[in-house]
Amino acid sequence: MEQALHRLTVATDGQGLFDVTSRICQWVEAQTIATGLLTIWCRHTSASLLVQENADPDVRADLAAFLRRLVPENAGCRHRDEGPDDMPAHIKAALTQTQLSIPVGNGRPLLGTWQAI
Amino acid sequence: MEQALHRLTVATDGQGLFDVTSRICQWVEAQTIATGLLTIWCRHTSASLLVQENADPDVRADLAAFLRRLVPENAGCRHRDEGPDDMPAHIKAALTQTQLSIPVGNGRPLLGTWQAI
Amino acid sequence: MEQALHRLTVATDGQGLFDVTSRICQWVEAQTIATGLLTIWCRHTSASLLVQENADPDVRADLAAFLRRLVPENAGCRHRDEGPDDMPAHIKAALTQTQLSIPVGNGRPLLGTWQAI
Repeated sequence: MEQALHRLTVATDGQGLFDVTSRICQWVEAQTIATGLLTIWCRHTSASLLVQENADPDVRADLAAFLRRLVPENAGCRHRDEGPDDMPAHIKAALTQTQLSIPVGNGRPLLGTWQAI
Repeated sequence: MEQALHRLTVATDGQGLFDVTSRICQWVEAQTIATGLLTIWCRHTSASLLVQENADPDVRADLAAFLRRLVPENAGCRHRDEGPDDMPAHIKAALTQTQLSIPVGNGRPLLGTWQAI
Repeated sequence: MEQALHRLTVATDGQGLFDVTSRICQWVEAQTIATGLLTIWCRHTSASLLVQENADPDVRADLAAFLRRLVPENAGCRHRDEGPDDMPAHIKAALTQTQLSIPVGNGRPLLGTWQAI
């Protein structure tokens, strides 16, 4: 079975949810995999992966607002090396995913209609 | 290595936790895989996967009650296309899993004694 | 493709976050895998897996404190077979991960600089 490793670098401008679906799907489609498994691993501890709808931008805004309320910056955390949003970023990462493995069929990740990464 | 894709459709009657362990295990046992990896991908953004005990039904009830308190329907979300439970369902999905990869040995998913999907 | 199953037993002394990175990496490095995928499955429903920073011990302490506040022991849960920390342990497991699949390159899990399991 063919196995390929690829590093994808994503630039961000601070806190937020960033859609990487098209970049990931483009890479998979450029491979010669018909059926297989795409594993995405986030090599950070204050950033993470999640799958959600991105058709209605309100979903992304509501989800970000929920996470800010759930993990506020003034929650008395001791780890603040990189500012008040440092530890909340670690906690949000722990509550979401560091890894996703997506089945690939016909050369494409088999995401549902509304799923974005 | 043999690779097989299979689509499992699960009917639900609204919010809740639904045990799909036996349906998943039956499919795996019908394959000719001795040792391998079963990857389950949920193709939705308002439904998700999780592994929990289902021997004592109180665990499932307590977990559902916790998630309803954590993500109440009146939390001021803007995305309500499908009603007040629309955005809470997305958030609960984001906090649980979209994907599970379970080692398979002796032709069966190697779940722990108390684990249900 | 080579496939190996291995059972790792981790002793704990009650609630907490336990670093298993070195034990896991040592096992992988003892295999003859150059490029591949390491899947870790936790066979419990009141213990789980997560990836976080463990360089500054405050991160682990802050994360444990956050989870205790989010899922307090007096939250009125019915499932208390093994005491007041029984159901909170199940809920914390549901909010984190039961499984991790980590890409392996050059015979080692490709964890980021600050990532610990």
